[in-house]
Amino acid sequence: MTPSTPLNELLRDVQQDIQARFGSGRVADYIPALARVDPRQFGLALNTCSGESASVGDCAQGFSIQSVSKVFTLTLALGRMGDALWRRVGREPSGSPFNSIVQLEREQGIPRNPFINAGALVVTDAILAGRPPQVAVAEILAYLRELADDGDIAVDREVAQSEADTGYRNASLANFIRAFGNLKHPVGDVLETYFNQCALRMNCVQLARAGLFLAHGGIDPLTGHRVVDAQAARRINALMMTCGHYDASGDFAFRVGLPGKSGVGGGILAIAPRKASIAVWAPGLNEAGNSLVGAMALESLSRRAGWSVF
Amino acid sequence: MTPSTPLNELLRDVQQDIQARFGSGRVADYIPALARVDPRQFGLALNTCSGESASVGDCAQGFSIQSVSKVFTLTLALGRMGDALWRRVGREPSGSPFNSIVQLEREQGIPRNPFINAGALVVTDAILAGRPPQVAVAEILAYLRELADDGDIAVDREVAQSEADTGYRNASLANFIRAFGNLKHPVGDVLETYFNQCALRMNCVQLARAGLFLAHGGIDPLTGHRVVDAQAARRINALMMTCGHYDASGDFAFRVGLPGKSGVGGGILAIAPRKASIAVWAPGLNEAGNSLVGAMALESLSRRAGWSVF
Amino acid sequence: MTPSTPLNELLRDVQQDIQARFGSGRVADYIPALARVDPRQFGLALNTCSGESASVGDCAQGFSIQSVSKVFTLTLALGRMGDALWRRVGREPSGSPFNSIVQLEREQGIPRNPFINAGALVVTDAILAGRPPQVAVAEILAYLRELADDGDIAVDREVAQSEADTGYRNASLANFIRAFGNLKHPVGDVLETYFNQCALRMNCVQLARAGLFLAHGGIDPLTGHRVVDAQAARRINALMMTCGHYDASGDFAFRVGLPGKSGVGGGILAIAPRKASIAVWAPGLNEAGNSLVGAMALESLSRRAGWSVF
Amino acid sequence: MTPSTPLNELLRDVQQDIQARFGSGRVADYIPALARVDPRQFGLALNTCSGESASVGDCAQGFSIQSVSKVFTLTLALGRMGDALWRRVGREPSGSPFNSIVQLEREQGIPRNPFINAGALVVTDAILAGRPPQVAVAEILAYLRELADDGDIAVDREVAQSEADTGYRNASLANFIRAFGNLKHPVGDVLETYFNQCALRMNCVQLARAGLFLAHGGIDPLTGHRVVDAQAARRINALMMTCGHYDASGDFAFRVGLPGKSGVGGGILAIAPRKASIAVWAPGLNEAGNSLVGAMALESLSRRAGWSVF
Repeated sequence: MTPSTPLNELLRDVQQDIQARFGSGRVADYIPALARVDPRQFGLALNTCSGESASVGDCAQGFSIQSVSKVFTLTLALGRMGDALWRRVGREPSGSPFNSIVQLEREQGIPRNPFINAGALVVTDAILAGRPPQVAVAEILAYLRELADDGDIAVDREVAQSEADTGYRNASLANFIRAFGNLKHPVGDVLETYFNQCALRMNCVQLARAGLFLAHGGIDPLTGHRVVDAQAARRINALMMTCGHYDASGDFAFRVGLPGKSGVGGGILAIAPRKASIAVWAPGLNEAGNSLVGAMALESLSRRAGWSVF
Repeated sequence: MTPSTPLNELLRDVQQDIQARFGSGRVADYIPALARVDPRQFGLALNTCSGESASVGDCAQGFSIQSVSKVFTLTLALGRMGDALWRRVGREPSGSPFNSIVQLEREQGIPRNPFINAGALVVTDAILAGRPPQVAVAEILAYLRELADDGDIAVDREVAQSEADTGYRNASLANFIRAFGNLKHPVGDVLETYFNQCALRMNCVQLARAGLFLAHGGIDPLTGHRVVDAQAARRINALMMTCGHYDASGDFAFRVGLPGKSGVGGGILAIAPRKASIAVWAPGLNEAGNSLVGAMALESLSRRAGWSVF
Repeated sequence: MTPSTPLNELLRDVQQDIQARFGSGRVADYIPALARVDPRQFGLALNTCSGESASVGDCAQGFSIQSVSKVFTLTLALGRMGDALWRRVGREPSGSPFNSIVQLEREQGIPRNPFINAGALVVTDAILAGRPPQVAVAEILAYLRELADDGDIAVDREVAQSEADTGYRNASLANFIRAFGNLKHPVGDVLETYFNQCALRMNCVQLARAGLFLAHGGIDPLTGHRVVDAQAARRINALMMTCGHYDASGDFAFRVGLPGKSGVGGGILAIAPRKASIAVWAPGLNEAGNSLVGAMALESLSRRAGWSVF
Repeated sequence: MTPSTPLNELLRDVQQDIQARFGSGRVADYIPALARVDPRQFGLALNTCSGESASVGDCAQGFSIQSVSKVFTLTLALGRMGDALWRRVGREPSGSPFNSIVQLEREQGIPRNPFINAGALVVTDAILAGRPPQVAVAEILAYLRELADDGDIAVDREVAQSEADTGYRNASLANFIRAFGNLKHPVGDVLETYFNQCALRMNCVQLARAGLFLAHGGIDPLTGHRVVDAQAARRINALMMTCGHYDASGDFAFRVGLPGKSGVGGGILAIAPRKASIAVWAPGLNEAGNSLVGAMALESLSRRAGWSVF
């Protein structure tokens, strides 16, 4: 049984606030491995900058992190390339999903931000750096294991294969960007790497731990290891705030008041700067493709803890 | 001479950081009253929640606040209508200016957010509430005078008239929204009110003072007067963060890390939650239509004071 | 009773082909005067270049010609300005209605063609030529009476007023174009003229007669009067073929094979070059806003008479 | 020396009208094989329904027919599938090239017409019919050889390979359409077939001969062989009229008044219904990607021969 610290009580209160809504939303069904996930699951975990941690629910159940991976590949690419990355990808919200390919055309193959698929493909291309996809995937995996301080993280091969089998839209985007010269590697290599990074399987405890450096100025407070410089950490948080939830980023900022990044597997990583890193998971999605119950949990948590940055 | 408090030193340091760039950018020239403003002017003022204030440069020089007024009309409308307002206007960034009218069509006359012109027109329509334009304008003016604690704020009649004479795009937007039934008053009344609110003339000292309640949970810390409830204040800040700088909102969040709202007159109101309200003015604009030197000043101030919310 | 010429037999055969569909489609209902039209009416009339004429059904019943008027205002403007008009309006199909305002923005206020509303507003602006709206309306009316050789054509004042009362989209377009400087007169004057030209009331007999010059190289074959030069007549026909039915122009060309221009009142003017001018009227519209039964009648007529230009 | 028939005189007169412009325009340079074509070449050939033929200039010089091939693959697919094809591809002009992918999204993967690349990919997919690309390519080649009555037509392997190497935009389109389920075969197979059909090499004499059935109600007047039924032939002509020149289709109809289809190799096939089939070639392109001098030649020919359908 989880010890009854104030932090655990906080999470239990949050869970209680929203448990009537468990199972709400619509589970992603474009690939079988996601479609068969039980929608009633809910996990929540957090790590504070002062070294505390807490978790409730299905916090040890692994799930497909999907687009949450974009936070970590962005961090990895920024660490390697620095601000040169911003010549290849923008920092602005994209408006409706409908607009993304339109703006890609208007803006000559420069995706609006690194958290829409087009932008994440460019980031992945930057990580490849002339190496084969499996090497880049191995690097991303090792990076996540180190950040989460947990060797038990893996790519879900079934998910990766399903993504590849059905990924026509991503293939369309990648070819489109390539037509503008903003991918440097073969389209197939970029897509293979990308589909693998999306298929990373983690649980809430691992995810909250992995994101902790973003709450602490780029330094992992538990190991003292600097992951990125303080300015880069602030900037990644800013991007999560303005662009982390696709076309519902404004609504998430409005309701939760924290930087966050969602994935279609139902996970959300949220950062309370100078305070905590939080991971929540609930598979049912709202119309914008973000975890419905997960966002509610974060809204409750932010309110109860007084963590809104606003 | 301004007393040498730490706060005044901070502002002088900021001024020094950026004064080599004074006069940069391009002054708005679509109306004569804006076109003839001396581009080399620079003003900066702030008020803290603890009651301190400071200012440098041309902080007593009045300027046309233009779209900064949208923060105050939104506050006024929210105070009156509450969340019912969100049925008529969204809370999402709009992407490129090009998209705004496209999205208005796709989204059936519901503007993306209250800080683009289309959304501000809907907010103004809500404020009209069946009254003649001059009554609504008088109310907005009285509201600003009370918030700024300064009766010496007025509408610049020349600017208002010029806006009306050249405001074909706003007239186009208003008619478009009206076609969807999302304006309730005659288009001419909405436009007249809107052009007057944009023509409000304030200086940095007044503007920083007027925005102070947003840094203090909706309460004016100097008078104890509650302007809006705490949640509404947080939400307005969230909207300023995600939507306050048109298609450069992401970049402003990335660089400055504070909620802010700019106007084409060169003013920006920025909020450091729980700390301070800041007004900056420099007439030269960047390509996105926001004060070039003003944003630099806020970037320097945020960094020096450690006020980024991220 | 109509005499039993081969031409009258042809029209009766056409009527028989489609009479099972009388009343199909959806009558325009954005203004009361159109909404209350009996949807089961059907009129068809034609004039040949060799001087014959024929008609069936409700061919003497007046209806609101609406956008069919654009053919005549274009002719009038071309006669006055010649090719200089093409500096202000394009000659390309516009794609979906959704695109029209988008393309107007991309193409700096130059409407795609004179048969979409935006383009027709520019043509009307050209006709105004510094005169008051009522003078321009009187000129258009006199022009139509002369072409139709019938003094009994008038503007339906109720329709004109209703158009003005509900014409927010047209007001939006006109202001948008004005913002780019491509209207020279006050927006209100252009709109007033435009709403009156749309409200012209004619019957099929009058309309077929008025369009006859387009089938005969720009010369009225009955009077010998040259209306426009032969090249201009061919070009107007070409525009009717590629742009005459909004976003169903391709389908009309595909099925009917004749230049044509439709109006939301249910009328269509079609031209069989070197052969005949045809007017059809049936109030029910298809999804693209063109007369459903009218297009069917023209498809049957074109097939039976072998008049397709293809 | 060509015999001095009236038809040959006509073509020589046309050539004389435009020869001052030889070399105008800009040769396509996205692949080496097109970039190195001498821009000053010009060929013109025609076949009449009554069995005459004539040609001038470089009419025996082979060139890459590129998108002109879309007329023939459409004919082939219509012959096989009939009207069922129209469930997968539309019949409307697409507006600006910019719009094509936008409309593809709005219209759920149904391309606007068979003459834009997206639509031609769907037509090619229909032709594949479960067979390997090389079989489909062989069928298309055999079809062209039969229509042109000339076994000496081939695919230019260098061009086909270059198209494949640089065809990222087409790959993007194909994947996008596949995401909507409107391609039935592997994307790679569709692209391979498509790149080969675009690389067909023909000369003006062959091309005019191959298109003759379209001028004669679907029957080859020289052999009496029915290629398609008369209605299908008329409809293909209608599509060439409204959609045959991308975003300059309206202008081509306006100036030339004949159905036509252009290719980026500088060729245009034009049809004068009931009269003649015409092929012109001049490598320099106008801004819309159509042969600049070729369109001038057709304008002159149409005027001199009185062949405009309008």
